[in-house]
Amino acid sequence: MLNYLKTIKPMKRAIMFDAIFNPKSVAIIGASRTPGKVGYEILARILRSGFQGFVHPVNPNASEIQGLRCYPTILDIPEAVDLAVVAVPASIVPQVIEECGKKGVKASIVLSAGFREIGPDGLMTEALIVRLSRKYGMRLLGPNCLGIIDTFTPINASFAPQMPRRGNVAFISQSGALATSLLSWAFQEGIGFSTIVTLGNRADLDETDFLDYLSKDPHTKAIAIYMEGVKRGQEFRSVASKVSRRKPILVLKAGVSESGAKAVSSHTGSLAGSEAVYEAVFRSSCILRAKSVEDLFDMIKAFSTQPIPEGRGTFILTNAGGPAILAADALENFRIGLPSLPSEVVDKLRANLPAAAGYHNPIDLLGDAMAYRYAFALKTLLSEDNLKNGIVILTPQAMTQPLETAKVLVEARKDFPGKVLLASFLGGVEVQDAIRLLASEGIPNFAYPERASYALAMLISYMEFRRREPSHPIPSPSVDYDFVKQYLSMVRREERVNLVGFEALQIVKAYGIPTVPCGLARTSEEAVRLAEALGYPVALKVSSPHILHKTDVGGVRLGLESKESVSEAFESIMRSVRGLMPQATIYGIEVHKMAVSGKEVIVGINRDPQFGPVIMFGLGGIYANLLRDVSFRLAPLMAEEALEMIYETKAGMLLRGMRGEKPSDLEALLEILYRVSQLAMDFREIVEMDLNPIFVYAEGKGCVVVDAKMTIET
Amino acid sequence: MLNYLKTIKPMKRAIMFDAIFNPKSVAIIGASRTPGKVGYEILARILRSGFQGFVHPVNPNASEIQGLRCYPTILDIPEAVDLAVVAVPASIVPQVIEECGKKGVKASIVLSAGFREIGPDGLMTEALIVRLSRKYGMRLLGPNCLGIIDTFTPINASFAPQMPRRGNVAFISQSGALATSLLSWAFQEGIGFSTIVTLGNRADLDETDFLDYLSKDPHTKAIAIYMEGVKRGQEFRSVASKVSRRKPILVLKAGVSESGAKAVSSHTGSLAGSEAVYEAVFRSSCILRAKSVEDLFDMIKAFSTQPIPEGRGTFILTNAGGPAILAADALENFRIGLPSLPSEVVDKLRANLPAAAGYHNPIDLLGDAMAYRYAFALKTLLSEDNLKNGIVILTPQAMTQPLETAKVLVEARKDFPGKVLLASFLGGVEVQDAIRLLASEGIPNFAYPERASYALAMLISYMEFRRREPSHPIPSPSVDYDFVKQYLSMVRREERVNLVGFEALQIVKAYGIPTVPCGLARTSEEAVRLAEALGYPVALKVSSPHILHKTDVGGVRLGLESKESVSEAFESIMRSVRGLMPQATIYGIEVHKMAVSGKEVIVGINRDPQFGPVIMFGLGGIYANLLRDVSFRLAPLMAEEALEMIYETKAGMLLRGMRGEKPSDLEALLEILYRVSQLAMDFREIVEMDLNPIFVYAEGKGCVVVDAKMTIET
Repeated sequence: MLNYLKTIKPMKRAIMFDAIFNPKSVAIIGASRTPGKVGYEILARILRSGFQGFVHPVNPNASEIQGLRCYPTILDIPEAVDLAVVAVPASIVPQVIEECGKKGVKASIVLSAGFREIGPDGLMTEALIVRLSRKYGMRLLGPNCLGIIDTFTPINASFAPQMPRRGNVAFISQSGALATSLLSWAFQEGIGFSTIVTLGNRADLDETDFLDYLSKDPHTKAIAIYMEGVKRGQEFRSVASKVSRRKPILVLKAGVSESGAKAVSSHTGSLAGSEAVYEAVFRSSCILRAKSVEDLFDMIKAFSTQPIPEGRGTFILTNAGGPAILAADALENFRIGLPSLPSEVVDKLRANLPAAAGYHNPIDLLGDAMAYRYAFALKTLLSEDNLKNGIVILTPQAMTQPLETAKVLVEARKDFPGKVLLASFLGGVEVQDAIRLLASEGIPNFAYPERASYALAMLISYMEFRRREPSHPIPSPSVDYDFVKQYLSMVRREERVNLVGFEALQIVKAYGIPTVPCGLARTSEEAVRLAEALGYPVALKVSSPHILHKTDVGGVRLGLESKESVSEAFESIMRSVRGLMPQATIYGIEVHKMAVSGKEVIVGINRDPQFGPVIMFGLGGIYANLLRDVSFRLAPLMAEEALEMIYETKAGMLLRGMRGEKPSDLEALLEILYRVSQLAMDFREIVEMDLNPIFVYAEGKGCVVVDAKMTIET
Repeated sequence: MLNYLKTIKPMKRAIMFDAIFNPKSVAIIGASRTPGKVGYEILARILRSGFQGFVHPVNPNASEIQGLRCYPTILDIPEAVDLAVVAVPASIVPQVIEECGKKGVKASIVLSAGFREIGPDGLMTEALIVRLSRKYGMRLLGPNCLGIIDTFTPINASFAPQMPRRGNVAFISQSGALATSLLSWAFQEGIGFSTIVTLGNRADLDETDFLDYLSKDPHTKAIAIYMEGVKRGQEFRSVASKVSRRKPILVLKAGVSESGAKAVSSHTGSLAGSEAVYEAVFRSSCILRAKSVEDLFDMIKAFSTQPIPEGRGTFILTNAGGPAILAADALENFRIGLPSLPSEVVDKLRANLPAAAGYHNPIDLLGDAMAYRYAFALKTLLSEDNLKNGIVILTPQAMTQPLETAKVLVEARKDFPGKVLLASFLGGVEVQDAIRLLASEGIPNFAYPERASYALAMLISYMEFRRREPSHPIPSPSVDYDFVKQYLSMVRREERVNLVGFEALQIVKAYGIPTVPCGLARTSEEAVRLAEALGYPVALKVSSPHILHKTDVGGVRLGLESKESVSEAFESIMRSVRGLMPQATIYGIEVHKMAVSGKEVIVGINRDPQFGPVIMFGLGGIYANLLRDVSFRLAPLMAEEALEMIYETKAGMLLRGMRGEKPSDLEALLEILYRVSQLAMDFREIVEMDLNPIFVYAEGKGCVVVDAKMTIET
């Protein structure tokens, strides 16, 4: 599908989004008089939502619906129409869209189902309505979506029965039903939204479009997304990376598992990208990833109400040991420890709290703590400069005052607006009123202590991301672009896709990456000459685009120390290979100088169909496949990403030096990663490359690529 | 502390537990007239709970409390008293306990705080009340606990304001406050309990006592435990292993993290055992471990209402794609895939469902599904023999009938009592009534789809455990017990704790474990003689109890191929070591025959202060520390546990043969594990042993221990 977005001007785009979220007039095409029908419900919701613009029902079989004048077609409406909401059967949608175009409508929301999701016929109709929209310069949301909500306009052009509370979180959802459920929970918990968008089949407008729009929406402070896959990988990544520096992006992505992925493709026909790549995209775009609906919801609660933390310093205040320990355990899982309190703070607390109270963090006010004890402790702790975040736990016991204690938190919230304050009041009916009060005053309550810890950990993650400097790819100077270009052209002319080790090594070498000295010999004399020139010991490896497992056919000999052994090895490899694979094209035999062995790592390139080139780093050698100790990032690698990749793996630990070993030459390895990234960006035709093993030596001693393979696009 | 339990007869124990949970008469010592005071509240709760036995308040300053005659001391009560509930200040508790003893009370529940948890003074008082209890053959729960509840007696002698619903789950909690919160949630969700026990300081009775009792309680079907640590490790394990075959044991253990562990020890003074060991205990006792309060609660919901599954076959039925995909993802995380439906089932479904519905598992009834669609699909799916478990998801959309659909599930529950049926009706007020109906009919609802998947996964885990045959340790024949006994005695006589490699190898060899041939040489002539006898190549290693890092002092030479090199190496090692460590005792130099290298693994023994000897298995060599690719089990290893240990690690994958490699000799490795387990059991004085590396060869070729070290108790 063409990337239409680029062909329209920015101003026009602003107008278009305005037409969707804040239209002056809306036509409901397929409006109905029958309650329960989509065309009735959607009209009713728009009218109930407090929408101030004009609303025009369109239906050829009615003259009036829900008190409004009804028109046979949109063309019969006397005034201009910004937005068309379409709820007619799929077969009629193309005609309706054509009419909308003629009418000069700016955008349409197609609720009707029966498109891509039902098979090839539906896909054809879907393509048709996109073409028609484009013909008239109109944008389209859906089809097969559940509409949109803007609480500030206000307008509810969706199936959600209830207008959500006004709030500062926008939610973009690929599943309409999930959006409805989330709204329902949120309503109960007092969480509000600025905007809701359900994407449906994403025939035209998609998550990236709305992400971009919402980043500029003044009412939106955080953006939550449920997705089964991204439509335009590269654009999504580039937009998300920018947006996430200003507003947190919270994503729940389904289809992680194999059977989940199956369900995705049979359900909405979207292509679930590979999990490792999505993980890399989210990391490099600094998207906070929810692992479950509950995670997403808890993040929404936290990000919509709390300031971005000013530091990691956290305290837990409680009237019961057990839940506080569980909360501390959960924080520790995110590597957030609880600092000990400075002695003057402990002294201050002791002066007004029982002797038996717990003065280590968590601070335990004991089971008989009434609200005044919380008030004193909370004020003392929040006044401490290094404590930036607090989790307050309350379990209902004999003397507990849940509502009074909630009031204490509300006061604290007002007195310390810059600090994060989360509550975990446990239990049912005894704490209900307290929780309601907390929610209304912007203090989220988490039913389980570990959930409060999770939410805080996500706030802290986002803080740490924002503190990092924006980063750029590292340019790699002195690369021989032309050599690689010519070489790959030659390979393509030969109609090959696989490069042999010798060739792949030459290519990376041209990009300034150290490789073992090697050459190709066509005769045993040439092999001996090469060996003498390179210096012993050498390895001989058969060079053939048709032989993938060289050892299996006797195609490799290592550790050759003399002219005689090289000459003998040449003949013996040739004999063995010709005997076993008489059809294989053999370029000759590669002579490699044997490198002193070092720590073995692997660096690779893989091309993802959605997101483009992906760089891999990991433990090399025989353990590479076994341990899957690898990390991924998208190319181009940003300055700090290469180091992150190394540190994320256990190989990284090995390279930093264990048990008193000297650290390895990370500088040199980083240089390889940057140059590989540049190679991947410069030559998109490289679909796969493995540099394995790379020997990494001690600090200052460099690295060397010992073997390589590469596949290019035809 | 003495293990008092063993000294009283089983009959007596039954009577004692009866005195706690079903007493004929109870005295409340410290009963009070003042609402809000512990002595008032506890009395009121017992009276409100419907308890049918006699209740006697004891308080020297009142003659009547809450309408009951009050006695100055327990000794003044004219009739026999089974149970004393003690709520007087800590300082008076010893006197009260003495009086209880004189009165012939069978058990006491001490609610009073001010014992172990406040420091050394409290600990002394606590020891005193235990001694006094024992003097009179009386058992004690607490102190510092929140009491007990039995819903069948019924009696609520606890701080829980509300009597829980009657149900089939027992809950043992080290945190009283957590129990109270859990009860409160459970009440809201319609979950009932048979028994609640809060343990407090566990001065006498502990989790193991109650686990044992509850395993025989006819009203209890599943046992949930919150613990911060186990008191009697060995007994807990042995009791839990038996109980878990009949009733699921669900454990939430706090203090996993470092700061959590700190909070535990400062909070109740209990010792948090090491995490890996607890994990091993739980695995080997087949305890289902909750990672959070929410996990525990969700397991309680599932185990209290559902049958144990009859198989893994699971379907998901839904009216929305998104949540179903998320549920499928979550199942996949537990390696539970969704089977495709047989074609005849698909045909049957198609006949009555819309064409656009999803017929792959998850089965998607589409957004407009009314209750009858669910009814038809659910019946069809549950009738299919291979589908043993169903998760039914409902999101409220325009046409959805939550309550009617709930009724469909209730019918299905009755028609298919042997199948697991879990619901995930998403949303707030729209699904409230439906959820209430489901709960009342034994169908738990999970607010988030992933939680239903979690609960099902835990049910399936328990099924799989129960299906396994009960297992026994494998006896290792032909071990030379006497040799090891004498050798270790000799080491002890020399007042040593570390055994050198040569000695440790001799010991494991005496247990029938293959080791590299080696011997100790005191002169270079002896070394040469040994080398000639063993065969070249050999390694020389200095043998000294004072040298831990032999290579650092030039104490190791590998790959020696001739008399001359052995002789030269001997002298050079001696020179180097004597020069660098003149004070070290040197036994001589060990001559090891070099073994052909194989896959490197490590097997070890570690002694846990709570649970006794622990066996470790993992990847050996330089990667051992880096990758922490290890698994633990307690000794003695059961037949299948050794194999499980291997399979849990990545080393296991390596040994099974990767990328077409031949599998390694697992049989021989298992034999080593069994024999090491036997060694650990026979010689409790071994506190640490490492066999590292062990070379494992191809199938049929065996293993060999290349190096070893051992530490024993003084």
